[in-house]
Amino acid sequence: MTDRFRIENLGEAAYPSPIDRAENFGFTSDDHRIAFNPYLGNGGGGHGVGEGFEIAGPRAKVYFNPPKTRAAIVTCGGLCPGINAVIRGIVLQLWYRYNCRDVLGIRYGFGGLSDEGETPIQLEPDSVSDVHMQGGTMLGSSRGTPPPQEIVDFLVSQKIDMLFSIGGDGTMRGATAIWAEVKRRKLPISLVSVPKTIDNDIPFVRRAFGFETAVTVATQSVHSAHVEATGAPYGVGLVKLMGRNAGYIAATTCLAAGQANICLIPEVPFGLDGPTGLLQLIEDRVLLRRHAVIVVAEGAGQSVFDPARLGVDASGNAKLGDIGSYLQERINQHFHQKNLNVSLKYIDPSYLIRSAPANPTDLLHCTRLAQNAVHAAMAGKSGLLIGYWHGLMTHVPTQALANVKQAINPHGETWFNVLETTGQPVAIGI
Amino acid sequence: MTDRFRIENLGEAAYPSPIDRAENFGFTSDDHRIAFNPYLGNGGGGHGVGEGFEIAGPRAKVYFNPPKTRAAIVTCGGLCPGINAVIRGIVLQLWYRYNCRDVLGIRYGFGGLSDEGETPIQLEPDSVSDVHMQGGTMLGSSRGTPPPQEIVDFLVSQKIDMLFSIGGDGTMRGATAIWAEVKRRKLPISLVSVPKTIDNDIPFVRRAFGFETAVTVATQSVHSAHVEATGAPYGVGLVKLMGRNAGYIAATTCLAAGQANICLIPEVPFGLDGPTGLLQLIEDRVLLRRHAVIVVAEGAGQSVFDPARLGVDASGNAKLGDIGSYLQERINQHFHQKNLNVSLKYIDPSYLIRSAPANPTDLLHCTRLAQNAVHAAMAGKSGLLIGYWHGLMTHVPTQALANVKQAINPHGETWFNVLETTGQPVAIGI
Amino acid sequence: MTDRFRIENLGEAAYPSPIDRAENFGFTSDDHRIAFNPYLGNGGGGHGVGEGFEIAGPRAKVYFNPPKTRAAIVTCGGLCPGINAVIRGIVLQLWYRYNCRDVLGIRYGFGGLSDEGETPIQLEPDSVSDVHMQGGTMLGSSRGTPPPQEIVDFLVSQKIDMLFSIGGDGTMRGATAIWAEVKRRKLPISLVSVPKTIDNDIPFVRRAFGFETAVTVATQSVHSAHVEATGAPYGVGLVKLMGRNAGYIAATTCLAAGQANICLIPEVPFGLDGPTGLLQLIEDRVLLRRHAVIVVAEGAGQSVFDPARLGVDASGNAKLGDIGSYLQERINQHFHQKNLNVSLKYIDPSYLIRSAPANPTDLLHCTRLAQNAVHAAMAGKSGLLIGYWHGLMTHVPTQALANVKQAINPHGETWFNVLETTGQPVAIGI
Amino acid sequence: MTDRFRIENLGEAAYPSPIDRAENFGFTSDDHRIAFNPYLGNGGGGHGVGEGFEIAGPRAKVYFNPPKTRAAIVTCGGLCPGINAVIRGIVLQLWYRYNCRDVLGIRYGFGGLSDEGETPIQLEPDSVSDVHMQGGTMLGSSRGTPPPQEIVDFLVSQKIDMLFSIGGDGTMRGATAIWAEVKRRKLPISLVSVPKTIDNDIPFVRRAFGFETAVTVATQSVHSAHVEATGAPYGVGLVKLMGRNAGYIAATTCLAAGQANICLIPEVPFGLDGPTGLLQLIEDRVLLRRHAVIVVAEGAGQSVFDPARLGVDASGNAKLGDIGSYLQERINQHFHQKNLNVSLKYIDPSYLIRSAPANPTDLLHCTRLAQNAVHAAMAGKSGLLIGYWHGLMTHVPTQALANVKQAINPHGETWFNVLETTGQPVAIGI
Repeated sequence: MTDRFRIENLGEAAYPSPIDRAENFGFTSDDHRIAFNPYLGNGGGGHGVGEGFEIAGPRAKVYFNPPKTRAAIVTCGGLCPGINAVIRGIVLQLWYRYNCRDVLGIRYGFGGLSDEGETPIQLEPDSVSDVHMQGGTMLGSSRGTPPPQEIVDFLVSQKIDMLFSIGGDGTMRGATAIWAEVKRRKLPISLVSVPKTIDNDIPFVRRAFGFETAVTVATQSVHSAHVEATGAPYGVGLVKLMGRNAGYIAATTCLAAGQANICLIPEVPFGLDGPTGLLQLIEDRVLLRRHAVIVVAEGAGQSVFDPARLGVDASGNAKLGDIGSYLQERINQHFHQKNLNVSLKYIDPSYLIRSAPANPTDLLHCTRLAQNAVHAAMAGKSGLLIGYWHGLMTHVPTQALANVKQAINPHGETWFNVLETTGQPVAIGI
Repeated sequence: MTDRFRIENLGEAAYPSPIDRAENFGFTSDDHRIAFNPYLGNGGGGHGVGEGFEIAGPRAKVYFNPPKTRAAIVTCGGLCPGINAVIRGIVLQLWYRYNCRDVLGIRYGFGGLSDEGETPIQLEPDSVSDVHMQGGTMLGSSRGTPPPQEIVDFLVSQKIDMLFSIGGDGTMRGATAIWAEVKRRKLPISLVSVPKTIDNDIPFVRRAFGFETAVTVATQSVHSAHVEATGAPYGVGLVKLMGRNAGYIAATTCLAAGQANICLIPEVPFGLDGPTGLLQLIEDRVLLRRHAVIVVAEGAGQSVFDPARLGVDASGNAKLGDIGSYLQERINQHFHQKNLNVSLKYIDPSYLIRSAPANPTDLLHCTRLAQNAVHAAMAGKSGLLIGYWHGLMTHVPTQALANVKQAINPHGETWFNVLETTGQPVAIGI
Repeated sequence: MTDRFRIENLGEAAYPSPIDRAENFGFTSDDHRIAFNPYLGNGGGGHGVGEGFEIAGPRAKVYFNPPKTRAAIVTCGGLCPGINAVIRGIVLQLWYRYNCRDVLGIRYGFGGLSDEGETPIQLEPDSVSDVHMQGGTMLGSSRGTPPPQEIVDFLVSQKIDMLFSIGGDGTMRGATAIWAEVKRRKLPISLVSVPKTIDNDIPFVRRAFGFETAVTVATQSVHSAHVEATGAPYGVGLVKLMGRNAGYIAATTCLAAGQANICLIPEVPFGLDGPTGLLQLIEDRVLLRRHAVIVVAEGAGQSVFDPARLGVDASGNAKLGDIGSYLQERINQHFHQKNLNVSLKYIDPSYLIRSAPANPTDLLHCTRLAQNAVHAAMAGKSGLLIGYWHGLMTHVPTQALANVKQAINPHGETWFNVLETTGQPVAIGI
Repeated sequence: MTDRFRIENLGEAAYPSPIDRAENFGFTSDDHRIAFNPYLGNGGGGHGVGEGFEIAGPRAKVYFNPPKTRAAIVTCGGLCPGINAVIRGIVLQLWYRYNCRDVLGIRYGFGGLSDEGETPIQLEPDSVSDVHMQGGTMLGSSRGTPPPQEIVDFLVSQKIDMLFSIGGDGTMRGATAIWAEVKRRKLPISLVSVPKTIDNDIPFVRRAFGFETAVTVATQSVHSAHVEATGAPYGVGLVKLMGRNAGYIAATTCLAAGQANICLIPEVPFGLDGPTGLLQLIEDRVLLRRHAVIVVAEGAGQSVFDPARLGVDASGNAKLGDIGSYLQERINQHFHQKNLNVSLKYIDPSYLIRSAPANPTDLLHCTRLAQNAVHAAMAGKSGLLIGYWHGLMTHVPTQALANVKQAINPHGETWFNVLETTGQPVAIGI
């Protein structure tokens, strides 16, 4: 295994696993790996054949003594479908498979891992039995991270042996810093993250939980935009979807809905003006077919804004300009100048998407992520997240995320499929 | 029957109805009436016992000779769930029950009833077979009305014998004006309206089609706001719903969802400032319970805007100030001043509501409205709309709508139930 | 008020209502009534003008002293969407509006009102906060009733002052018997029922809670049957829906779905054989259009079964023959004889319908029923159910239900609309 | 590439692709391959590193001259969510990307590829624009296959150059036979299959279209069973799901729903009787928790039936015994003998699952399958199906399916996760 994907362990796992699998199922060993690059021949790019990820799963021996182990779960950042299902999965797995029955729920994000935070709650199967069917997070969430020292002090004072962090890239950076501090102090604390990214932009995680639900709800918005656009003369439906740096939701929704005529994502720059620009494109489409539907990811077209004036949010991410409202204004203006009585309907379903309950496809994914997070922590692994690679759950060091991004390849198949589906030109106003 | 509810007829209905009901069902006669005021005793208010509406239904004789009759259908104003189901119902009823097979679909509203408009399309059962399961209007819609003279010229030139108008109060005013012109010229043209009002504010129509669907979709938004509000410390969910002059959608949604803490409607003024004002109320709630959910109808709180600066829309309705964004700004400001880190999520699901396909409850209502609209037109009645009163379909002269409004009684049971459900005070900042 | 609709009271209501309505809303008085028959002219049938129902609502004075009152809630019979919403509504209304905080939840039906039953649970707002969004009953239900004496003994021993029974006609008969025993012993116990009937067949209750949800789910089954039927050559979709004595769900679903070709209900007998019989009708339709969709209510066509062999169920209702399977067999047989390769798909969605969570239309109805049930009990009324008449919540003595049935009039408008929608003949095989 | 996965071509692809990708995207070459076995180290099993599948996608040169090409689409076997989306995807891809505008829709399965069949219909974008949002197949389907000679005669007489077959393993066998006949006659006809298997049991196709939708609808049935089971004393919910030889739907649904207590699949035998048998297991569970939910795949437990008496269906598959009804009877019997008043609710949602419209997750998958099927046919490949392997669309010879099955590994991770989720023992009654 290459260094960048090597998983760190707290020490020797000395206890036999309480899970009775030996006879019928066997255990997963650290040697089980999935190739980072499974392509053969000239599709194989530049990666070495031998590089790969540890496959997640139950280990034959565990590092912690389950009945004496205290676990904690924290949820950070914005909402995403499936958080409650991950919480539930972790609690049930700890309780029923490992007989670990001391599980704390941290309130309102990393801020709850401090003496100023709200008191954690005790979690047990009854507290989580139906919670997977509700959106949001039963623990509450927030953005921002107290200093790692403070968090580690809190973990020590509360005798927390393993911390499950459900969060996005800010949370992963936080978890990496906490892990560094834990190592510095040589503490036996396991830090396992379940990556939450409705934008699907965390590297080495091909499919993030909640993403399928997000696309499902987003697709309904595109249907609505289509109905509105076709219901009026010169009707234009404009839908803004999530996607700060990666346009997966926008692109996938356009592929699924099959009714969008233009898709705009952060990875593909575009211009509004001129004969090949967006505004003329919309005008041409509307004159030809009486209506148009446009899907824009929130991070698309940011070059029209001055980043200095936008600032950063509590998670330290650069704030985005509101491209949806900007396009709304520019389109209205354009048609006004052309003396065309456009009827523009702007839909922003973001909160309806984030807060939706996970659909069964995601529920299943959440359950498996949770089960494998528990296996990893129990085995004494730390500083890692549960990844998903070519259909398998994997172990990925959180550190490996540094300076890597996952986004749509503007020269790849997904984006080409979008162009095929919308019929839009390869370059808009560029 | 009193004058204000008297229905006008084009002349003697001389043809026997092609519907074979005599033996098993009989026909409805114009004498069948439902009391305007069915209360007994001192709940009966000031209305006369004898006042009532004609009950809609098939008449034994019809005025038009079905195989030689040309009908037209037009849809006007904003979208509303169920328009396609009404269109479908009219076409199927004309075709299969009355053997009237010459049905035109007028494109894009009253504007299509003019030589400049788009050419009408011919409608038949196959064109409408599954259309009830889709949102929007298959004919397209628009706001605004050409002069009645022009419309009547068009009806005459196109040999249209009966016009079914699906639209709101602007459309009803238009239909009244067209009927006046038709009468002036003594033309045998039947004008029957199916009232479309997602706000449920057309008088004598207790339940407008699409309203139940609207509440269903709106309820999901309130659930989302609740999930968002509870997912963050000091979380506030703010949902703006339709309701220009009448807060039925907002009030009914609060009753159904059971998760809103404050409901604001046009009928009940409120103030933002001071110790009993909205802002303080929200602050108190958030400090007490960590979250709050607010539902505001778009027409609520309009006194904070200057109507002179807002103008009117293409249907002649006064434009509304954007109370949702206004509250969003004021709430953020208020908490900022109090140094409380509120997390406000603002949801405006209007287009998702308008464009939804009708749910079965509304589908049924749409079918019955359509069937009765056809019965009325065939019987030679004109200048009327299909009303709904105490569970029965009725005939109401469109003229009776002039200067009457339907809205929530701030001293009535519905509003009291809302107060019971939200727990909000009777007076907010007033 | 006529005798049959007269409501009985436990005694003088001496306490002022804790609800502060006087200034803005006033209270409802027993004189507020809605006419039993609100028709005017010759549509008025034979009923007296003065007959009517007490209108439900908060009374100015209450009989019970709320802080010292113990209430109990019991749910009986089969599942129906909305039961949990009624439970929730009663608990919240007692707790927040009347400050009555001693509320018992009886387990598993009337059987829980006995010393052999499971121990009741204490209910409070937190126990019911989100329960309205789940199907079923949080208390459990069962069929059958212990002797009234035993139940009254239990009410007395447990110091229960008011019992809210949510159930069907068996439950109403039980409640009537309990009320008789309570009166015999001159006990101050209020018995208020909320009628639960997914079949919508309880008299004086125009719209039962859960019915709209039932139709919504049933409509999806008819869509499925249509998709299956059109997906195969000679495809036949057969859907069995609830409806023991009244075909409201089947009829309403056919009106809403608009895709059924034949609707069979208990109120309208039919025959299978002969040139006008059901089997020939299906064959003709399938040969003409390649597919057919049939909806049958479970209580339809029972004359083919021998009642002596069917027996009765635990609620004392006659068991029904399985008309769905019977038709399935006969249709297959018929086509086999004709050497036609029919593809019959039989769908029985009953449990999916019964267990569905209430939709917003029903949630609202449940909330209002619950609120008015509490108002009635607090006012010291007893032996009644909450009815629904021409859009208003009413008080109806449970005794008035004896020997009265609500069913579809085979010569009325609803059934005619069904015939119009399906296109089926008035008489099938009769 | 190994022989078993080698794709056959009709001949040299001489025309440049009409798709303009060269500059921005490039084309996929036949050398692009994905490893059959991407595991590294000792997880790699016995497979050779070099074995793999051709990656699907647009080729730089095409075999057919698009404007002169006639394509045909046929749908076979039972319904499955997404068939219409595949049809739509093929038509749009042919029309807009390849300018191939002569597309026939074959009626009612392979039977429509014969002179006795119904006349094919001409397909164009307008015929399919919204069809992806409806369940079923717009072309109709059927089971059974005429002799390959007859089908090839028909293809020749109708001048069909490429045939897209959407169907299951029977269809794949049929397509293999047709391809053999086409090769025997040396005809330039491309045969491309899109595998349809709601059971997800076709090898080399990790995820079949419609599967996610099937699990979504099935999950609702398990929720219903749970609500019913908990709503009655000793409540048992029994759900039968699809899965003739492979229990993927049952297993995945149990993982997603999280409410089933026992899952029974064809791959894992079980016994009913004895102290470790299914009946005792249910009894224990019901006595302990008052309710139980059981999910059974239709192909599970078939050893209780006599195959000789069951026969085969029109597709040549062995008919299954009705395990759902069998269990229903045996469970009722068992509790009757034990004098326990069980309340068993049996739910069979199969037709509701099969006929559901595809959800967005599946819509996307269907679109990509369709696009790649067209790319393959246009490139002159034949005798293949579009597979799905480690997240990529692939080319798989239909012949490779012979004598291979895909099913759940009873010693693998998926089944272990099910055991973890239900809590059932590894062996039941065996």
